[in-house]
Amino acid sequence: MKTLAQVGEDELVRLITAGLKTDAGVLLGPGDDCAVVRGPTKSESLVLKTDTIVEGVHFTPDTAPHLIGRKAIARVLSDFAAMAAIPRHALVTLIAPPATPVKRILGLYQGMSRLADEFAVRIVGGETSSGQQLILTVSMSGTVPNKQWVTRSQARAGDLLFVTGRLGGSIRGKHLKFHPLVKEAQCLVKHLKLTAMMDLSDGLAKDLPRLAARSGVGYELVAEDIPVNRGCTVQQALNDGEDYELLFTASPRTTAAQLQKCMQAYPNLQLKCIGKLLPLKKQRQSLLGGWDHFKK
Amino acid sequence: MKTLAQVGEDELVRLITAGLKTDAGVLLGPGDDCAVVRGPTKSESLVLKTDTIVEGVHFTPDTAPHLIGRKAIARVLSDFAAMAAIPRHALVTLIAPPATPVKRILGLYQGMSRLADEFAVRIVGGETSSGQQLILTVSMSGTVPNKQWVTRSQARAGDLLFVTGRLGGSIRGKHLKFHPLVKEAQCLVKHLKLTAMMDLSDGLAKDLPRLAARSGVGYELVAEDIPVNRGCTVQQALNDGEDYELLFTASPRTTAAQLQKCMQAYPNLQLKCIGKLLPLKKQRQSLLGGWDHFKK
Repeated sequence: MKTLAQVGEDELVRLITAGLKTDAGVLLGPGDDCAVVRGPTKSESLVLKTDTIVEGVHFTPDTAPHLIGRKAIARVLSDFAAMAAIPRHALVTLIAPPATPVKRILGLYQGMSRLADEFAVRIVGGETSSGQQLILTVSMSGTVPNKQWVTRSQARAGDLLFVTGRLGGSIRGKHLKFHPLVKEAQCLVKHLKLTAMMDLSDGLAKDLPRLAARSGVGYELVAEDIPVNRGCTVQQALNDGEDYELLFTASPRTTAAQLQKCMQAYPNLQLKCIGKLLPLKKQRQSLLGGWDHFKK
Repeated sequence: MKTLAQVGEDELVRLITAGLKTDAGVLLGPGDDCAVVRGPTKSESLVLKTDTIVEGVHFTPDTAPHLIGRKAIARVLSDFAAMAAIPRHALVTLIAPPATPVKRILGLYQGMSRLADEFAVRIVGGETSSGQQLILTVSMSGTVPNKQWVTRSQARAGDLLFVTGRLGGSIRGKHLKFHPLVKEAQCLVKHLKLTAMMDLSDGLAKDLPRLAARSGVGYELVAEDIPVNRGCTVQQALNDGEDYELLFTASPRTTAAQLQKCMQAYPNLQLKCIGKLLPLKKQRQSLLGGWDHFKK
């Protein structure tokens, strides 16, 4: 009998989503950064996302509580950014050992509230339970104008491949302090002709093949063009994970002037072309690596 | 420094929700069965709920996987019932040790899908992570016609207190197999003048004082009128918890004919008046007991 460690995360997700039913109200089901379902009006759809962080996996017992809380919210905001959607409301599920100091828990919620407030997201409820490890699960709902969300599945051969920021070495601190690119994504959608987007959580080597597979295309990555964080190798930029930058594809006719508009609006935003998409049969590279939650 | 075990669940929730900001779009924030936020139309609001079940707390290592999955979905459906809201979409967060057999996980999802399908709820996404214990967290969104949701906070002195079904002894099996009263709640709202409602998850002795406190009223429970499951004492009916029946309050002018309409529409539905609400200063009884997630 196979275990989760043997099949790995992507195969597990394939297996558990294969049996799920859908209907006309589900506009975008499992397999993307968020789900999109029909809203009560014709102009806006509802965007849904849940995410979890687990002690010993996503943070350590000595991580400052407000940074743990911040990360729990920031990761979900990053998924909303990846859809070019607007996050609005959050629910928080707390699991904690009964011996946890109350002060530590209040620190978590301060970290969550502070970042949520910054993005005008309201925490409207949640649930608590005892458990062996400290775990925070955040589910968020929000909105997106109809047909304006950006999925992983509409990239076409010939599209240019872009990444924001710099990759690698996130464990040195960025994984706790990254800035979710919600507003920047709105700007990209406004000025560029985006075809696909996702946030980089498991490393470019894992996430780019996921995007390409969802779109049914191949890719050609120019290794020397990958923006690498100071002190990191290209291998680290490919594999470390937890960058929470945006990986996106855009029309081959994208101009420098278009990119410039977003970088002027958001001076901290860096945009870099790191390759292009190919017809599936022209794919030569094979990326292996990145982070898998079950295979070690 | 106080621990969660020392302050208990209700005080913890009070502390963590005290610092949360709100705005005009939040129609019902923390402290009720679900949250309600403004939807994009004037006729319908959005209902949000998250809930979690943890191995060793809500089920045991030898619980059949499909029953674990069923329970994860059923608990959230029960919260939607308590608001008289319609559940629509679910996200599922799975945390599991890497050595878990894939077959066990597929069983969980079969149990979830089957019950979700029965209520036309679509599972539209989720998240997976490794962890020490098996944990399922379900977040659900749905709708309710504007101003038709039923909270815990609008009960008035003089209102009659009702409960569905029979209480106590849930651990013998009902906690895994209960029927969420989503449709029955719709019928109650249609035929009775409900003032408050909640689902009984932690035991009448814990949940009734919560409802009364939220409404700012006292209560008088008639112990001999509490419908008790076969083989259970009144003490068990008060304290065991996990009944997932509905506790509701209705106008003192509620008639037997009104109750009869719902019991005719749903022949398995039992409705029993178990007392009434009092002005706060006339409160004599003091219920102590029920389940607390952190105090043991």
